[in-house]
Parts: sequence; C-alpha cells; structure tokens
Amino acid sequence: MKFNPFLEAIKTYESGKDIELIAKEYGLKEVIKLASNENPYGTSKKAKEAIINNAHLAHLYPDDTMSELKQALAQKYDILKENLIIGSGSDQIIEYVVHAKLDHSKAYLQCGVSFAMYEIYAKQLGVKVYKTPSLTHDLNELYELYQKHKNEIKVIFLCLPNNPLGECLDASAVFEFLEKIDKDCLVAIDGAYNEFASFKDNKKHINPKELIYKFQNAVYLGTFSKLYGLGGMRVGYGIACKEIINAFYKLRAPFNVTNLSLKAAVAALDDDEFVQKTLENNFSQMKLYEDFAKNYKIRYIPSYTNFITYFFDEKNSTDLSEKLLKNGIIIRNLQSYGLNAVRISIGTEYENSRFFEEFSKNF
Amino acid sequence: MKFNPFLEAIKTYESGKDIELIAKEYGLKEVIKLASNENPYGTSKKAKEAIINNAHLAHLYPDDTMSELKQALAQKYDILKENLIIGSGSDQIIEYVVHAKLDHSKAYLQCGVSFAMYEIYAKQLGVKVYKTPSLTHDLNELYELYQKHKNEIKVIFLCLPNNPLGECLDASAVFEFLEKIDKDCLVAIDGAYNEFASFKDNKKHINPKELIYKFQNAVYLGTFSKLYGLGGMRVGYGIACKEIINAFYKLRAPFNVTNLSLKAAVAALDDDEFVQKTLENNFSQMKLYEDFAKNYKIRYIPSYTNFITYFFDEKNSTDLSEKLLKNGIIIRNLQSYGLNAVRISIGTEYENSRFFEEFSKNF
Repeated sequence: MKFNPFLEAIKTYESGKDIELIAKEYGLKEVIKLASNENPYGTSKKAKEAIINNAHLAHLYPDDTMSELKQALAQKYDILKENLIIGSGSDQIIEYVVHAKLDHSKAYLQCGVSFAMYEIYAKQLGVKVYKTPSLTHDLNELYELYQKHKNEIKVIFLCLPNNPLGECLDASAVFEFLEKIDKDCLVAIDGAYNEFASFKDNKKHINPKELIYKFQNAVYLGTFSKLYGLGGMRVGYGIACKEIINAFYKLRAPFNVTNLSLKAAVAALDDDEFVQKTLENNFSQMKLYEDFAKNYKIRYIPSYTNFITYFFDEKNSTDLSEKLLKNGIIIRNLQSYGLNAVRISIGTEYENSRFFEEFSKNF
Repeated sequence: MKFNPFLEAIKTYESGKDIELIAKEYGLKEVIKLASNENPYGTSKKAKEAIINNAHLAHLYPDDTMSELKQALAQKYDILKENLIIGSGSDQIIEYVVHAKLDHSKAYLQCGVSFAMYEIYAKQLGVKVYKTPSLTHDLNELYELYQKHKNEIKVIFLCLPNNPLGECLDASAVFEFLEKIDKDCLVAIDGAYNEFASFKDNKKHINPKELIYKFQNAVYLGTFSKLYGLGGMRVGYGIACKEIINAFYKLRAPFNVTNLSLKAAVAALDDDEFVQKTLENNFSQMKLYEDFAKNYKIRYIPSYTNFITYFFDEKNSTDLSEKLLKNGIIIRNLQSYGLNAVRISIGTEYENSRFFEEFSKNF
C-alpha cells in the first residue's frame, strides 16, 4: 500500500523511558526517573483530589467548550477566554502553529538546538527548517537568518527557557526582536518552563497579556506538565489574539483533552503552596548539580528550568546513560539532538543524591 | 495574518451539550443527557478504581509504548501488539487514516449519512468526498461509486453499525465487498458500536483478526468511549497489518493518551459483568423506544447501537430538541447532518421514562 510520501521523512520522537518497564527489564527494585522533567513532588494534592472526586464521571465526554479551565486561565493571565485554546499538552498547540501557517513551500526558524517537536511536526508537512549556527538562542543570528529567508519563514519558535539546553533570553530582548518581524510571520513563544525562569530571574518573565496585545502575530504556549505536576494528564494551552485562536480551532479535534485532565488542571492552578514549594526546591537542588559539575569539571549552561544539561568532552553520553540506567537512574541522553550531553531533571533531595552517587561510580 | 487556505473549508464538529452548562443556563435541578451515546451505567467499577488508585501518578508522562493496554487488546483479539495503535479516541485513528492516505488530489467514499468526523478530517486536507444517494450503507451503491472514481478514491469508511443512523451491514457482505476493492485503497471499518451490533445479531460481528489477515488494506477502529464507559478518557484503537500501523505511527504525537486513560482502559477490558449488564439493558430499553415510536407513528431505523434515531415528517427536530432541552433532556438534533431527525442515546430505565414523559408533553 502506498502512503503519502511525506511520511517517509518523519522522525519519531524519543520519549523518556518508563519506570515500570525499566524496573522489569533490569530486575531493579528502585528506579529513579530524571529524564522527562516531570515534577519530582508528584501531583498537587488539590489536583489529585479533583481526579479522585471526578473518577465516577469518566464515562462522560469532556465539556468541549472547556469553559471552567478557560475561565481559570483567563483570570490568571487577565485575558479573555477567546484568547485561549486548550491542547493535549502544549505539544498540540505546536502542531496547530505548524499546520495553520506552514506547508512544503514554507519554512520555520529556530535556534541551533531546541525542543524536538517543532521539527517533527514541520517534517510531517515537508516544511523546511532554518537553524542558527549557535546552539542556544542568539537573537542576532535568528534575525540574520530571518532577513535572508523572509519570504519562506512564516513561523519562528522561541523556547524560553530553552529545552533541552536550559538558557533563557530576557523578555525585553524578545519584545525588541518581535518589533522587527513581519506581521505575517507567526512567532511562537514556548513558555513550557517559563515559570521556572521567572522565579529565578524576573527579567525572563514573558507576560502573555502584554505579548498578545502588543503583537497580533505572537502566540504564547503554556503547559500543566511541568510546574503543575500533570505530565500524565496532557494539558497545555495557547494564548493569542482571537484571529489566531480561531484559526487553531479549525484544526482542533473535538474532546482533545480528557474530562479528568480539565478538572485536574483547574485544581492545580489553585494550589499555590505546591507551586511555591516546587520552585524553591528546584533551584536549591539545582545548586547541588552546579557544584557537582564544577567538582567533576563538567561543562554546563546555567539553567532557568527544572533540568540541567551536562556536556562531555571525553566521556560518551550514551555509555554513561546506559550505565546509569542499569543502576536504576534514567536520564536523557541528548545524542538524538546531535549532542554529546545528558539532560538531568532536578529531582527530590533523595533522588538527586542517588544520581550523584551513581554518577560518581560510573563516570 | 494569512493562514493556510484549506482552513476556511473546515466545518467544526458540533459536540453534545454539557450537563453542567445546561443546568446553569436553564436553572434546572436535573439534566438528563441522552445525546452523546455515553454509557448510562457510568464507568465500570474496575476502571473507576484504576483511576483512583493511579491518581497519585498524574505527574508522570504516560508509558509511550502503551505496552500494558496493547497486551490486553492483543489478548482480547488474538492479534499481535504490532497490529495495534492507540489513539485519543478512535477519532484520532480516523485522523491517521485520512492523513496517511489522502490529500487534495484524492477522495474518500462513505454512505449518504455517517459519522461527521470522516468529513471533518478530510476537509482539513481539501479531500473530496463521495457519498451514496442512500443515507444508510448500500454496498451496491458504494461499489458503483467506487468503480466510477477508483483513481481518486483511496479511502472507504464503513461505519458498522452506522452512527448516527443505527443500521448495520452483515460481516459476510462486508468481506465480499472488500474482495472487490483495490489493494491500494484503505478500507476503514469503524467498529465504535460493533459490540452492540454483535450482541443483538452475531452476523454483524466483525472479527478484527480475520479482517486484517484477509485484507492487508483494512483497518478496524475500536473505542472505549461507548460500551466500556470511558467517553471522558479518550481512548480508542486501530487494528491493521504492521505496514499500516507503522504508517500511522509516523503521524502519532507522543503521549497522545493520558496515563490514567491507559490504566482505566486496561481495567475496563477486565470488567465483563459491567459490559454484559450494559448490553442486556441497552436492548431491553431499546424495545421501549421502538414501542414508543410505533405509538406516536414516528419513523425509525431498527438500531444495532446504543442509540435510536427518530425521523419526523411534520414536526421540526430543532423545535423539539429545544423544547426538551428547556425541560432538562438533552438529545442530539440531526439538522447538522441534513436530517429532520433526532438521535437519542438509550439511557437507564429512569432516564428513558423521563424522556418519554417530556417527549409526550412536547410532541
């Protein structure tokens, strides 16, 4: 059977390995996963309660207007419900960005290394990708490439802070950059980890309201998978002017988010204590990873996220990841991004100490 | 901002109205929803327990290999895990069918009136639709159209039994039809309600194993949203030869199903008692709807599903649906399908009696 030819070019996303499967495969009693940037403190108590209290409604289709969650997000960001679209993770909003604006005759722009899903969705449509020579975000390089290929580039992805590298542009620099971009080019600001960056340094904080009122060609992407501890529930969102939201709505399948996910997300937004604890612990534990790297003379980029990326010169990241895996520590090898590096999610104090212990033994 | 021009042609799916929203809007204490063919007996006890017991894992990304659910389905159907792909509802498998095989230069074929999502996904790509003159499935008409437009038609959707009309072809006739279809044309058998049809009359039973071993160009679509009582959790699946599954996998976004949905689906498959009770009650209550229609001289098609469709001659289905809505009964008006008809989900004994009561008053 013949399939659409563009399918051949599609790369498959390499997801973090599953704890239960690894435990079974290697016969391990304890497996610690520091690979997918999940919240190490679990799910917020309020979100967990919302799931349990609504489990008996699992047979009912979700409210497809998603009005309860939209109302809560509209309040949080001081925007209108009409400025919002909810997705199955912010991944799905990335998909809408790509499908609404791009086809095989167009291109998108990103920095040298950024979140893999941009390219995966683009490849589905045979879209060309321009990447800067620098791995991390360099606005001069981005602008230079944009100027050169303006007629083709109809989407720019900025990942702030950047996954999987961890660096983050200042919001003021991003706003200046946006001023120079053509109004027909959609700029997607991926803020999946922006709450972490904002906590560390308020200059990194992207205010979605300010963004979308100033720029009718910008969309902000947020998620419940990281700070809000709902990675398994698949809830993210896009914030933009109504025109963009309406276009994305054309691409949305009905019931794209489960009813329990909607309930859990509303509850998670209301759990300030959990959010604060997560942020504080993240950066106090991050310090240990920085000190550890210095001790071992490992290069790293100061991180504005809930992970840190270690770069190796002599050691091989694949070997190291495999050794750790056999000892029950799952981290993310970045060879699939073309890097001899590993990305480690900041875990709980105990999880991190176990990482340091196994890393020391196997490095 | 300019968007891809095909977006303009996209119709939006009209989903069933939400109970909470209707209760609020009309100030009603009790709202009965017989509009979305959900399971009136709720969620199976085992599935509900699985959700509650796993709520504390909501922060962890789903196992993207979905091996536990695949194993359970492979066992149920006596097939291989490699013959399976899991979707966010069987809707998502419909999307994969369309995107893997079709583009604006191609067409798909269906009967006169069938599940709306086939056309919605097709329109997203500017795909042409051929529909038979008969509303329900007529294999002669389908074959005639297929023969005439063979070069264009690369997908055929057969909905067995058919939503929103309720009729069902015999499996033997479907298999004969498949023999005559070119091997490069993908035939999707939508079995979302097939368990109901099989229970009523075993001649309607499509055996996915037999289907995919005989026909390398067939895919069977199943769902947990109806019989298994998990409409809110968004889990469906496709069964086909490995070649087709591999092509669909290229289109699948990672983590397309929540981790609690996977757990709930595995548990639901194990709850025979719930499934049997649902099937038995459905058809004993269906009898009441048939008798009621006869009393009121309302035309209906004998239904092999968990809903029944009433056709009107003089009365207007929109007026009637609105009157019932104001009295707390949500049914599905089929004007958006071009029919002066309503589709009513078979509810519990109490829900159905309330429907009969309000219908009698307002007809």
